[in-house]
Amino acid sequence: MSQPINRYKADLRDYQFLLFEQFKIDEILALDVYKDWGAEQVKMVLDEAYRFVREVTGPLNAVGDKEGCRIENGRVKTPKGFKEAWKAVYENGWKAIGASPEHGGQGAPMPLQMCVEEMLTGSNTAFAMYPGLTHAAAEVIAACGTPEQGQKFASKMFKGEWGGTMCLTEPHAGSDVGAASSSAKKNADGTYSIRGTKIFISGGDHDMAENVVHLVLARIEGAKAGTKGLSLFIVPRLRVNADGSPGQENDVVVPSIEHKMGINGSATCVVNFGDNDSCVGELVGTVEHQGMAQMFLMMNTARIGVGLQGLALGAAAYLSAADYCKERKQGPSAKNFKDPEAPKVAIVEHADIRRLLLEMKAKVEGTRALGMKLMGHLEWARTLAGKDDAKAGYHQGQVELLTPLFKSYGSDMAFEVSALAIQSMGGAGFLKDHPVEQYCRDAKIFSIYEGTNHIQALDLVGRKLSQNGGANARAFLADVQAFVTKHREHAVLGGAVAQLAKAQEAVAGTAMRFMMWNAQGKAEKVPLAANQFLTMMSETTLGWLLLEQAVVALEKLPSAASNDKAFYEGKRYAAQFFAQMVLPRVAASAAVIAAEDQSALDVPTDALGAV
Amino acid sequence: MSQPINRYKADLRDYQFLLFEQFKIDEILALDVYKDWGAEQVKMVLDEAYRFVREVTGPLNAVGDKEGCRIENGRVKTPKGFKEAWKAVYENGWKAIGASPEHGGQGAPMPLQMCVEEMLTGSNTAFAMYPGLTHAAAEVIAACGTPEQGQKFASKMFKGEWGGTMCLTEPHAGSDVGAASSSAKKNADGTYSIRGTKIFISGGDHDMAENVVHLVLARIEGAKAGTKGLSLFIVPRLRVNADGSPGQENDVVVPSIEHKMGINGSATCVVNFGDNDSCVGELVGTVEHQGMAQMFLMMNTARIGVGLQGLALGAAAYLSAADYCKERKQGPSAKNFKDPEAPKVAIVEHADIRRLLLEMKAKVEGTRALGMKLMGHLEWARTLAGKDDAKAGYHQGQVELLTPLFKSYGSDMAFEVSALAIQSMGGAGFLKDHPVEQYCRDAKIFSIYEGTNHIQALDLVGRKLSQNGGANARAFLADVQAFVTKHREHAVLGGAVAQLAKAQEAVAGTAMRFMMWNAQGKAEKVPLAANQFLTMMSETTLGWLLLEQAVVALEKLPSAASNDKAFYEGKRYAAQFFAQMVLPRVAASAAVIAAEDQSALDVPTDALGAV
Repeated sequence: MSQPINRYKADLRDYQFLLFEQFKIDEILALDVYKDWGAEQVKMVLDEAYRFVREVTGPLNAVGDKEGCRIENGRVKTPKGFKEAWKAVYENGWKAIGASPEHGGQGAPMPLQMCVEEMLTGSNTAFAMYPGLTHAAAEVIAACGTPEQGQKFASKMFKGEWGGTMCLTEPHAGSDVGAASSSAKKNADGTYSIRGTKIFISGGDHDMAENVVHLVLARIEGAKAGTKGLSLFIVPRLRVNADGSPGQENDVVVPSIEHKMGINGSATCVVNFGDNDSCVGELVGTVEHQGMAQMFLMMNTARIGVGLQGLALGAAAYLSAADYCKERKQGPSAKNFKDPEAPKVAIVEHADIRRLLLEMKAKVEGTRALGMKLMGHLEWARTLAGKDDAKAGYHQGQVELLTPLFKSYGSDMAFEVSALAIQSMGGAGFLKDHPVEQYCRDAKIFSIYEGTNHIQALDLVGRKLSQNGGANARAFLADVQAFVTKHREHAVLGGAVAQLAKAQEAVAGTAMRFMMWNAQGKAEKVPLAANQFLTMMSETTLGWLLLEQAVVALEKLPSAASNDKAFYEGKRYAAQFFAQMVLPRVAASAAVIAAEDQSALDVPTDALGAV
Repeated sequence: MSQPINRYKADLRDYQFLLFEQFKIDEILALDVYKDWGAEQVKMVLDEAYRFVREVTGPLNAVGDKEGCRIENGRVKTPKGFKEAWKAVYENGWKAIGASPEHGGQGAPMPLQMCVEEMLTGSNTAFAMYPGLTHAAAEVIAACGTPEQGQKFASKMFKGEWGGTMCLTEPHAGSDVGAASSSAKKNADGTYSIRGTKIFISGGDHDMAENVVHLVLARIEGAKAGTKGLSLFIVPRLRVNADGSPGQENDVVVPSIEHKMGINGSATCVVNFGDNDSCVGELVGTVEHQGMAQMFLMMNTARIGVGLQGLALGAAAYLSAADYCKERKQGPSAKNFKDPEAPKVAIVEHADIRRLLLEMKAKVEGTRALGMKLMGHLEWARTLAGKDDAKAGYHQGQVELLTPLFKSYGSDMAFEVSALAIQSMGGAGFLKDHPVEQYCRDAKIFSIYEGTNHIQALDLVGRKLSQNGGANARAFLADVQAFVTKHREHAVLGGAVAQLAKAQEAVAGTAMRFMMWNAQGKAEKVPLAANQFLTMMSETTLGWLLLEQAVVALEKLPSAASNDKAFYEGKRYAAQFFAQMVLPRVAASAAVIAAEDQSALDVPTDALGAV
């Protein structure tokens, strides 16, 4: 085997466009809290992050896939190179960038953090999950734990000295979290004895850090059934000595790991707590039965993280395929396809390949814009909290609304776009010689974990649409409407904006229909249509943000440097393509939903599958 | 590792419905040529084939995936058990069933052959490719070769004594077959010296048969450029002695095999012919430069074969997921979802799972009906040839028209349905503990090989629609129209039939639009819309055939045995679901095509991918 090589590519120009041209990061950088950050520094971070992932994490992606993880002497061994990469990530400050200064971090603006995370994840999804989940777990302890817990656990996790996990799922409690049967019994010293088996625990053990800190959902003896009786516990693999160093084993055992379709470098563990009755945990914070609310803090971060995984792999697949299609020569140009002597052209010249690439581009860049919009709302919600509660509330409402969209659309997009990438490359795309088949395999889990996409759709339709008396949803529709009103007569984009207007109406109408169904006692129809509605709303959001990009791009085009013109024209055509090819399907979906077909409910169960 | 177990399931009831209730195989069995076949025998063959694949090929599917193929001492080694399975397939007559009596076969009716092939392929796609391609290559030799070649090669291949391949693709000639640079030079004895490198050759070598017979496209020195200058040669790995036994090596070398996303049990080979100038081949038949026409005979069989692969894996994924969803308990019924003490139900009771399963069912069973329709046309085209040329021509025309649909829709469906199967199973679907993730990986190649789905779409739009002056297409539209006219007022299905009517009009209108574009010099728009059109026409065909099933089922329902009622009701709801959820998208696609967006042509190439 030759030396591992990097096969990952990122699109820094698009980051710069998003940060400085579409979403105006300058306004964020002007905030007092970012006085140490400037535009040049942002650009430097992007360049440095890209250099880092090409040198460190990117070359390990295929290696990790091939080698996978294994259990040796009761401990998980990660693939060759992962341990060194983990060390490099933390030494070079790539996780500190997202940690707050009181935990030794740099507290970079969220939109910049997103770009860095996209590169870490896109270059090596399986690897990036370990520090990603560690960071998310640390954030929960920092936010909900006592100051001592923050010091004892979170600060070490932010620095990568210790790893972290979230432990929800059990063999009979997946989507139905409330069925969890793990138990906790309070000890005289205030700690809890934990017992139970958790499954599907990413990074449930590994050899990259000296300790692993599990956040475990369990039911304190005598607590209520269902989600309301759950509490969250900090359960380290090694107990912590008085001086803060890791000490004796804590009866946390990983008996097995899963063999999977993808993300093979990420250890998916079964974790047994307290098989020998000597597993000790601490309650997060000081109040019992707050587990679900605390876990949701992590879950919201994790859901945005999954959307980002989707974006990252979709983007990696698209850029990889584009490079291949510009290099690979096959067949003559369509102009002289009947002449066997005609010169061969790169396949990017063929209409179908262009169609595939433009579709990938629009979906990837639209999803990135959705993620960036979400980051902006997060940033402003945080900044304005306690200063302008009305505005902060608006931004927080949009965070709530857009999170299930980013998670679900991003995850579906990654699988779809990586499959299109394979298709555009022909037989080569199916081979392990190229990275796209791995992207496709890795991506399939995104639509399942951290709440399946159906759970996201129910969250959107059953909770988020009516949150704040429907104000969040109305504000979203108004934002889209304002764009439509402003640009309806746009000389170039007017036709595309008209498609957006129809899509927005279809979304609004379908949301009304759900309310009507609920009022008419037809609530059982809602789950049948929820996924479709989530897609409709996501597509509308992408269409809107892509058109916004196109408006900006067309303004900049006349004065653009010659080597930048293609970039701006690309924005225009991606938006136009999406508006004409995808947005009309939003109204079509609304009509399908309006037909109220409920065959799936009426069909006898015995008719599903074979006898 | 425990003993390999079968994880494959087939739906024999659906075969019986198709053969005896929808497509009336009795009329075919009544033909003189099938005087040895009766209904009971057909049923027995189905039962026996199912028993065989569960015992022999099914248990090797995961084994083959895990172990893959390798090269040892210059020869391809197939996974453990494949050699014995190959022997069993031929000893039990599972390939003889499709061979004509003059080659020692049983010449079963095509619709029955299809069912048997679906089970062979569904139980182990990678394995089934070896005998499948061998059979297809033998058919070309039998049809186009001299009687001596039939005896010398085809008869041994039909019996599985020797394997067979088709060798088209070269490093710089994939979709552009005419660019092939393999060469042939006529020798004094009438044989040809072959030189060239072929890639992506499935079964290019293996250890299951004593010889492998390659059908190689090559250009005789001095022949024209492009496809018209190609000839087809029989090139065995071992030369054949005068007594018909395999003799000395024929300078055919497999230097490497590919490492792939799926179908790992199928050896995808690079094959070098004549590196040492001692590779000898025979021209197929006696006339040079007929290579493309001869190869297309095999290619048409192979394209139908790929459609069947798609059907087989989609079906296997659906049935596997259905079983899981009926067993796996998770969460309470929707009726009391707020009660944490409510009993847990099987996930098949949840609305979203039912929606996913019904979608899988409709797409799988609709594709099977499309395949069966195609088999019927093949059967009647063959039977009526020379007896009633008008009718034979109609049937042959439908074969031509439906072949790209079956290949493309079947292949796309397999990937989509196996992804849905994974989704319905949640995290479990992503694990190698269950077969669906392998189905998904295996299926991805179907949309690429034997002519990518875009090549199929161009074949449909550029050739098949206008074949016979458009008569084939008009006959297809008339067949659908006749069904609509007959059932428009159907008490239960009328609304669904109305959706079919709209879809049929959308297909007809879009076909007209293509003619208009060609007439107006806008031919460059056609490839942008071709894939969408193929999907529209496929969906319309599925909708039609599913509704036909529903009509039959509703007629049978009142007098059905109690254990058969769910089956018939399933047919009704699958048809209704497809008509209400999928068919409206046909008209939506027509509207999208009508918008004539050509962003993909206009976008600058430099805007695709990153700088």
